[in-house]
Amino acid sequence: MLPKNFSLDVANLLAIVRQTKPLVHNITNYVTVNDVANILLAIGASPIMADAKEEAADIASISKALVLNIGTLNERTVESMILAGKAANERNIPVIFDPVGAGASKFRNEVTNQILESVKISILRGNLSEISFIAGLQSSTKGVDVSEADLSNDAESVANLVAKKFNCTAVITGKVDIISDSKRLAKISNGHPQMSKVTGTGCMSSAITGAFAATTNDMFLAGIAALTSMGIAGEIAYEKTQNLGTGSFRNAIIDSISCLDTNTILERGKIE
Amino acid sequence: MLPKNFSLDVANLLAIVRQTKPLVHNITNYVTVNDVANILLAIGASPIMADAKEEAADIASISKALVLNIGTLNERTVESMILAGKAANERNIPVIFDPVGAGASKFRNEVTNQILESVKISILRGNLSEISFIAGLQSSTKGVDVSEADLSNDAESVANLVAKKFNCTAVITGKVDIISDSKRLAKISNGHPQMSKVTGTGCMSSAITGAFAATTNDMFLAGIAALTSMGIAGEIAYEKTQNLGTGSFRNAIIDSISCLDTNTILERGKIE
Amino acid sequence: MLPKNFSLDVANLLAIVRQTKPLVHNITNYVTVNDVANILLAIGASPIMADAKEEAADIASISKALVLNIGTLNERTVESMILAGKAANERNIPVIFDPVGAGASKFRNEVTNQILESVKISILRGNLSEISFIAGLQSSTKGVDVSEADLSNDAESVANLVAKKFNCTAVITGKVDIISDSKRLAKISNGHPQMSKVTGTGCMSSAITGAFAATTNDMFLAGIAALTSMGIAGEIAYEKTQNLGTGSFRNAIIDSISCLDTNTILERGKIE
Repeated sequence: MLPKNFSLDVANLLAIVRQTKPLVHNITNYVTVNDVANILLAIGASPIMADAKEEAADIASISKALVLNIGTLNERTVESMILAGKAANERNIPVIFDPVGAGASKFRNEVTNQILESVKISILRGNLSEISFIAGLQSSTKGVDVSEADLSNDAESVANLVAKKFNCTAVITGKVDIISDSKRLAKISNGHPQMSKVTGTGCMSSAITGAFAATTNDMFLAGIAALTSMGIAGEIAYEKTQNLGTGSFRNAIIDSISCLDTNTILERGKIE
Repeated sequence: MLPKNFSLDVANLLAIVRQTKPLVHNITNYVTVNDVANILLAIGASPIMADAKEEAADIASISKALVLNIGTLNERTVESMILAGKAANERNIPVIFDPVGAGASKFRNEVTNQILESVKISILRGNLSEISFIAGLQSSTKGVDVSEADLSNDAESVANLVAKKFNCTAVITGKVDIISDSKRLAKISNGHPQMSKVTGTGCMSSAITGAFAATTNDMFLAGIAALTSMGIAGEIAYEKTQNLGTGSFRNAIIDSISCLDTNTILERGKIE
Repeated sequence: MLPKNFSLDVANLLAIVRQTKPLVHNITNYVTVNDVANILLAIGASPIMADAKEEAADIASISKALVLNIGTLNERTVESMILAGKAANERNIPVIFDPVGAGASKFRNEVTNQILESVKISILRGNLSEISFIAGLQSSTKGVDVSEADLSNDAESVANLVAKKFNCTAVITGKVDIISDSKRLAKISNGHPQMSKVTGTGCMSSAITGAFAATTNDMFLAGIAALTSMGIAGEIAYEKTQNLGTGSFRNAIIDSISCLDTNTILERGKIE
């Protein structure tokens, strides 16, 4: 469905990220924020974390992309997310939204809806439970990990539905990552199951989606580039650390992103 | 005092954690939260961090254990801790309390007392300074590390006193870890002194205590399982990284928990 | 300019840190707080993080140094910084101020000025963009990394200006680190460019500046000791991990600080 050389587009976009070092503003959770900052540096971007309402809009305005992540949301940061989101919208700065744990509590559901109503989202990235909730489907989110009950939902249909509903690119990460802008659909088969055994691989995926979105107008390509990069990094990390454990694996993911190059993407990218 | 095959009980409980992947709700500090999430994943549980008062009770209610840690408490999170604690109590979900730095400031002391008055605690875990404070003894807490002056307190008596006073299991970590439910007493001699040279080993111990408490009704056993696991992980981590330094040691602790298996527990467990 | 054996003073101060394990109070950002705690433990100090206004002054009062870092400031923590800063001032406890991202938003600028007006700072540490802003010079801060436009400012003059203006020791980190107390000037040529590819090397530098400031009355020496230590750690970390990537590099920095000894400082210190 996609041109054979799609991996080349990803590699080219990575080169642009490394040249232009785009400033990526993150309002994110405090669990994985350090990994998010380090993976953004590793991909070649310049991360800034700023969630005070007094500066959220100012920082968003000087950034090239804004990443909103509700992993550990609270009243204060939700207000900042909306202020930053609106400021980004005014300047056509892409906004990536990671609705961590949507479906798990009334508060998360309300905040998710509030953000979707107040801010025009460019790319929505979550697991199948979270995106199913946003699609308005039955969802049985258990905490922040995908619920096994939700795995029966058809990820491709869910992604298409959400992409159309919010006029955005929808990214559902899982064994196979699905990316849809409602007209085009991509599947990425990179990655390794152990990525679900360390916290933050989802958050890191959303963050580097921001780095790629900062350097192209094609949000569909940005989603592909981010998930291909993360998936390849997960594979290499596992190969390097398989007998060592999940602490080493987590570091190796960041190592692999920092060492990612054109050849590796061309050789390993499984995009269709 | 304890049956010789206590290590087998620990190994069996670990197997249940890995099968059932219990959701463990943490309201914890932002210093070590990432390590806490990663060690919970490494032991086989599913961590969720949520400290907004709007959702604290909801998330606690769907969890299998709640871990309260006051390492970097503030007004907002204290309120959430109490809401979550009460919701857990109503559903007989075990609550683990880690009174980080109790004794170090009036505010920490007041919050510690407030939590102990409002929430029924299943397992209380701290160092000798913190638990001495809770026992009502003289305590000379210096920050969040155990004070040398407090080392003269008799850990076994302190643990028994606190276990009786709060009708809970008390766990005092140190060179030898003491676990008491006021009727039974266990001592665990696993671990390595270098564990005090990385931040978060206490927090991680409390978190995996939550994972074990989620899978048994015997809180005394849950405490033993957690401290034996952490102690063994510390030993293996030191053996693997002794010449490398504390950054590598910290990762190796998480590695070791993720690789922990029945044989290792049976061979290394020093429970009496 | 400086005596040849300045490295010896650094080594001696490190030995004192390791003997006395000074309690260092940090009110800092949640991005790099874990690395900050671990590097303080690695250098031999005892870190405490406490940012609730209810205890900020109490904790500062029992500490040997206070480190204020505005990386992810908000209304609540700013109030705590000022309370802690004033309590430290009353007891002659040295205060280190890291104005992360000063110049990047109106809010950060206002808070920076508010802290400088309310609290007597012993050591001010930042990159050239941040310290240029404080000096009242044109500054074109882009996020939290140094702006290339600002590299034309003469770091030595900026450091001298700020040191005089605030009667403090000013530390500007960069390719060559500059330390000035307005009467004396030191340049440290240790370090490695890859240090800018992991988050938190600046925050960690400020934190260990606190550890050294806790053990000497000479703030100029404390600044030199911290930056020499960090620079050497960066060099060793790069030598050990150069083909591995930035995740490994970050851990190796903490490893290297924990293994730092007199001989390494004497052999590698490039202080002039």
